Amino acid sequence: MNRVILLKNRPKGKPSLKDFEFTEEEKPQPKEGEILLKTKYVSVDPYLRGRMRDEKSYIAPFEVGKPLESGIIAEVIKSNNKNFQMGDFVNGILQWKQFQISNGNGLNKVDRKNAPLKAYLGVLGLTGITAYLGLDKIGKLERGETLLVSGAAGAVGSIAGQIGKIKGCRVVGIAGSEEKIDRIKQKFGFDAGINYKTTDNIKKAIAEACPNGVDVYYDNVGGEILDAALANMNKFGRVINCGAISLYNETEPQTGPRVEPLLIKNSILMQGFIVRDFVKDFGPAQKQLAQWLEEDKISYLETVVEGFESIPQAFIDLFDGKNKGKMIVVV
Amino acid sequence: MNRVILLKNRPKGKPSLKDFEFTEEEKPQPKEGEILLKTKYVSVDPYLRGRMRDEKSYIAPFEVGKPLESGIIAEVIKSNNKNFQMGDFVNGILQWKQFQISNGNGLNKVDRKNAPLKAYLGVLGLTGITAYLGLDKIGKLERGETLLVSGAAGAVGSIAGQIGKIKGCRVVGIAGSEEKIDRIKQKFGFDAGINYKTTDNIKKAIAEACPNGVDVYYDNVGGEILDAALANMNKFGRVINCGAISLYNETEPQTGPRVEPLLIKNSILMQGFIVRDFVKDFGPAQKQLAQWLEEDKISYLETVVEGFESIPQAFIDLFDGKNKGKMIVVV
Repeated sequence: MNRVILLKNRPKGKPSLKDFEFTEEEKPQPKEGEILLKTKYVSVDPYLRGRMRDEKSYIAPFEVGKPLESGIIAEVIKSNNKNFQMGDFVNGILQWKQFQISNGNGLNKVDRKNAPLKAYLGVLGLTGITAYLGLDKIGKLERGETLLVSGAAGAVGSIAGQIGKIKGCRVVGIAGSEEKIDRIKQKFGFDAGINYKTTDNIKKAIAEACPNGVDVYYDNVGGEILDAALANMNKFGRVINCGAISLYNETEPQTGPRVEPLLIKNSILMQGFIVRDFVKDFGPAQKQLAQWLEEDKISYLETVVEGFESIPQAFIDLFDGKNKGKMIVVV
Repeated sequence: MNRVILLKNRPKGKPSLKDFEFTEEEKPQPKEGEILLKTKYVSVDPYLRGRMRDEKSYIAPFEVGKPLESGIIAEVIKSNNKNFQMGDFVNGILQWKQFQISNGNGLNKVDRKNAPLKAYLGVLGLTGITAYLGLDKIGKLERGETLLVSGAAGAVGSIAGQIGKIKGCRVVGIAGSEEKIDRIKQKFGFDAGINYKTTDNIKKAIAEACPNGVDVYYDNVGGEILDAALANMNKFGRVINCGAISLYNETEPQTGPRVEPLLIKNSILMQGFIVRDFVKDFGPAQKQLAQWLEEDKISYLETVVEGFESIPQAFIDLFDGKNKGKMIVVV
């Protein structure tokens, strides 16, 4: 049989296990042109929370009673498609099923000779590419500038900060525990860190950590940390609005200080960043990241959880910051 | 004697005549290399309200007890500078004085043969250039897109809308009276208009007037109209944050719905626009505007008030929307 995870209810506020349902179905058989995939590694990511809402967005919402999906590395265990062979590993947006059929569209083969397979969900996958292209396309980070990163100990943030260091910038990270602050400084080479949970005045803390102001803010969290960052932006500053995890579980639209006076005052750019808008740039980005990885210029952390049945809890744990770096479920 | 207008107090909320002080000083005499200028036309603009606050911004704040300044067309009535002759007219940021001395730096000669002198404060001056470069540098408006403009009957908005029509776009304007709505449609060729003062639901009104959504929003007002526009932006929409007149007289920082979820959802760009950031582009912009003016492709309105003593009231009247198009004081 084939285990499948469905969206049972649209979560209200923070997702809970009750929002997910395990079911079983017949193990599918590939037809001509199709391949049978066995799920190996499942990426769980904060942005999936957005797809659980019933609203139009950059990607269709999940449907209640239907399987969830995310970035998955799977093994080809049967192939009726000449482009794939048994034993190949592929990366793509796939369903939360132990086994599934694909016609191969949207799948990329990954080679475990170049890097551990899991890396293709993280530093060499959408996570690393998100960090790289956000800085490249919107941040336009220049040597000598100051880069501020929120969610700095997270999967995207930790890579964004390291890219900032490679580019010759002062890099300051914001995270939610002393342990995370130590990690971003010691493991990822950030110049300074701010623990937002123990800081009375985050705006002042940013000002102190960024004596030359903030040129680029890589935002993964939104909310009050974004407000504090905006107040510290330099003339011509750029804000990469990559995520807003602080707001994802809110049930009502949130209010905050109006941004337009600050934007005008300092000619600041804010732009929503969705990595899928830049698919044509994925190849070069991945190549650059692979090179840095090989040169030991970037490192990464993973939190690996075991078992297909652990996928929903691993997702929920993201919102409590329980992951160190990229959260991956090995099936 | 020489009359001068000083900033008496920093206004609290909406400026009033009590915030200004008239004084007299000796009529100055130009030294070697200097010219004596007689003020002819004075531009009053909403952005001056920002300079009345004691805060760091893109341009130094006015000082209490010191003369105010704005865009002015003046006549050279005495010259000890070989670059200027008696009878020349110049355009620049000058003080609110009947007569003043300059060394010529920052002044541009204007020729009344090409256009009425007042036009150099409006359509051919910073006003028109602001409309043009905002659309060009941030809006990147493309044929067939929908352009939404707030403050549409104002000096900048009415030109921005006309440029949108020249570029082959659907253009919708927001303004605060039926008379203004008639004017933007009949005189300036907007496709539709929304009177925000009589509209219950501005978000819905925008959706109806922009059936294909909004691609570019030229914002002169900020606040709740910006919120409603953002909710109607298309994927990859661009917001030109040129002004926020609805907030200029607020004494406390204002709050509103957080923008970051919407920016991310639709890959929207918001950018503060200050025309002075693009000084090197002024020449080509003015040339294009002059050509359109000559070809009768753009028209403009002015509200002309007479007398040096009327300058403060003309400025105050901007915040009650008493101007039709560009507000100018003829001295």
